[in-house]
Amino acid sequence: MKIQRYKRDLDVSYALGATLTFELLKCRPEAVNRIFLSSSTERSEAVEKLTGICRDRDIPVETSDKAFNVLSPKGNCFVIGEFQKFRARLSEGSHVVLVNPSDAGNLGTILRTATGFGIEDIGIVRPAVDHFDPKTVRASMGAVFHTRVEYFDTIEAYRERFPERKLYAFMLTASTPITEIGFERPGSLVFGNEATGLPDRFASFCTPVIIRHSGAIDSLNLPMAAGIAMYEYTKEDWR
Amino acid sequence: MKIQRYKRDLDVSYALGATLTFELLKCRPEAVNRIFLSSSTERSEAVEKLTGICRDRDIPVETSDKAFNVLSPKGNCFVIGEFQKFRARLSEGSHVVLVNPSDAGNLGTILRTATGFGIEDIGIVRPAVDHFDPKTVRASMGAVFHTRVEYFDTIEAYRERFPERKLYAFMLTASTPITEIGFERPGSLVFGNEATGLPDRFASFCTPVIIRHSGAIDSLNLPMAAGIAMYEYTKEDWR
Repeated sequence: MKIQRYKRDLDVSYALGATLTFELLKCRPEAVNRIFLSSSTERSEAVEKLTGICRDRDIPVETSDKAFNVLSPKGNCFVIGEFQKFRARLSEGSHVVLVNPSDAGNLGTILRTATGFGIEDIGIVRPAVDHFDPKTVRASMGAVFHTRVEYFDTIEAYRERFPERKLYAFMLTASTPITEIGFERPGSLVFGNEATGLPDRFASFCTPVIIRHSGAIDSLNLPMAAGIAMYEYTKEDWR
Repeated sequence: MKIQRYKRDLDVSYALGATLTFELLKCRPEAVNRIFLSSSTERSEAVEKLTGICRDRDIPVETSDKAFNVLSPKGNCFVIGEFQKFRARLSEGSHVVLVNPSDAGNLGTILRTATGFGIEDIGIVRPAVDHFDPKTVRASMGAVFHTRVEYFDTIEAYRERFPERKLYAFMLTASTPITEIGFERPGSLVFGNEATGLPDRFASFCTPVIIRHSGAIDSLNLPMAAGIAMYEYTKEDWR
């Protein structure tokens, strides 16, 4: 099989690094195609453990410096897991819905935080960054392997699938602060693009919510707003 | 004056981009040495406004492609503000204390969030990343110009300066969840290094606090933990 630089339209993606590759093998073993080691990968205990898991599961382990040159040109990674992209369908649980997220690192951070607070379903409205981008996979610290991510062409398509639930739209123009919202669960926490936020029209079919802050900043950054919202939404679960 | 790549031991640093440079001119006009434009900087309304402010304040505006080649080699920036680094002394207000933070982007995000929640004093225990690193300045979206940042060689030196106040140490080994802490104010929210957290000994002179989350992640990332803590600590201020 060819090794090429990651692109969105490929059927495979990559977990760069040993920790991520362990997480991949633990959560999605059926999706793993093969593991790459480089000629300079030390045969540490972790690597022995990893190759042991692969042996047990009939997953090929290949030594390929080319894989590292192509996929991790900075050279700070000694194990790569190649996996088949997998599809998911959102459950009826609580959702985070991201409308047009554009930054791979931000999406990864949001996936990690969602996993931390027990939110396992992420809806994404296109156009959007790709959750299988190795940058997102890495920023998620493997949370992408725990999460169901489903894409929708429009927010209307999402609403048709989940017509009953309450949508909470985080908007700077909202007047109800998050501290006064009694969240109905399962609900959906909806966030807009990093630069532009949610369009005003979302106020007509969502409950608008604001995380108040001082005028000295324009807004919280997207992962921070999403993280604080998830914290507040789930805090009774983690007492 | 020479233009050289940023280093920690220089007396000057740089705001890369027009938005940041505006924030610099607004908050710290006395610290600005000069503004650079490149030969390809368009004379937009924003640039005219900026050069107007500089004219009023006798701040030199230089056209220098070298400045951009040296300071912003990726070429996605058309205005640079050079400023003299300034020192600050923490006030008696609420503090965030970062022990050995190592990532410039994370520090910038924490500064931005602190400014958003009205916390204007950040103590940093060395060794630590440099808050005047242009990467931190940029990630802070200019919040570094609003904030008092003071470095300490040890946490003991910090405690000697502020012996009366309560320190809240965010630690994964803590047993009291943040939802059950009644914060005494002004207090200090204390966070450890990205990879290693706070040493256990902090529990002997701080109130240990935990932001509970599921076992599917090792920890929240540092800016997220700090952001959630600041949100919870200040939430009554933003009702």
